[in-house]
Amino acid sequence: MTNWLVSPFTDLMDNDTATEILEATYKAICQHGYADLSLSDIADETDRSKATIHYYYDSKENLFSEFLDFLYDRYTEQLTPVEGSTPREHLFTFLETVLSDEHTAPGQEFRTAMLEVKAQAPYDDTIRTQLVKFDEFLFEQLRDIITAGIASGEFDDTVEPTVAAEFLVTAVTGAHTRRVAVDHSTDRLLRAMRWYIETHIVDERQSEDDP
Amino acid sequence: MTNWLVSPFTDLMDNDTATEILEATYKAICQHGYADLSLSDIADETDRSKATIHYYYDSKENLFSEFLDFLYDRYTEQLTPVEGSTPREHLFTFLETVLSDEHTAPGQEFRTAMLEVKAQAPYDDTIRTQLVKFDEFLFEQLRDIITAGIASGEFDDTVEPTVAAEFLVTAVTGAHTRRVAVDHSTDRLLRAMRWYIETHIVDERQSEDDP
Repeated sequence: MTNWLVSPFTDLMDNDTATEILEATYKAICQHGYADLSLSDIADETDRSKATIHYYYDSKENLFSEFLDFLYDRYTEQLTPVEGSTPREHLFTFLETVLSDEHTAPGQEFRTAMLEVKAQAPYDDTIRTQLVKFDEFLFEQLRDIITAGIASGEFDDTVEPTVAAEFLVTAVTGAHTRRVAVDHSTDRLLRAMRWYIETHIVDERQSEDDP
Repeated sequence: MTNWLVSPFTDLMDNDTATEILEATYKAICQHGYADLSLSDIADETDRSKATIHYYYDSKENLFSEFLDFLYDRYTEQLTPVEGSTPREHLFTFLETVLSDEHTAPGQEFRTAMLEVKAQAPYDDTIRTQLVKFDEFLFEQLRDIITAGIASGEFDDTVEPTVAAEFLVTAVTGAHTRRVAVDHSTDRLLRAMRWYIETHIVDERQSEDDP
């Protein structure tokens, strides 16, 4: 499964100019970070001129806003079909996909740039509004999987889906931050999260049936 | 209880020049962020000249490294005496202190600057090493409180202190990131965390005794 955090463009088919520019933006942001990113840096990653980029996107802010929209579409496209034979499997696969910790340079560089972008959010309404969309998508997906697991009897019915989803979104966010700030492996958190789900979300009788 | 994230200098008594410069650094970073911070910005927040600052700290990097050391000392000084009549109360008070969500401008500005600093960590060994110290301190404190609670019988003895502490550190980190990136109240997470602790860490019989 492709992880948008590693490369949102891996299975990209439609290579029109606008998309080509967004792909160049991805490469440029991995290399230069967000604060120092210029349209020239982006042009350097394509065969297109700076003038062509200007024709499609009239400013760095406008381009970056389109870039976040594009990432959002890829993110939801990649996470929506994640499934499991049961809600419990679904929950594990979903979290593994979101936390997938490939130790490749572009993955870490991109995560780092995104953390920079998050630090811009208080000063940029457009960025904040777009980051809220990612945050809400994650929350709603997790809440729905937990709700489905309670309905099917696989999850403990004393679990409050909104509270558990809130907790998991926060932990996922923290895992990405710690990966950048203290180079803490998300694999370690994934183990802690599996434990949390097995002992606190999955109904006890289910855990015993199928350890 | 003073929260270092809001103002680490609130109860500062020893106003020697070096400390005065560190205090000015705090004000300057709140105002300008980390990336754009200059020694002139810091000088503007004190009666000292840029030359005096240079005398004490020969570069922005050196000053900032001292600043992180200073924050670390304040952080540990403020969190170490946090106590409760029982490990459970201790755990709640500790997390409340760490997550305290005062809606003051300097608090949010400082958190934002610190997120910027975290995004610098992959490119700066000194910063990363110092951030690791904060991360490890938090982990060790939480692990020790949980261990004490299991020993006293107040916490469930099937809880693995290192795994639960790992999970809580990640959630605390995520709460700070979400506060900046999506303006998500940490109060909401604090409720989710209370629920997590009451239902998953505190021994069931204790929760029933004292709901």
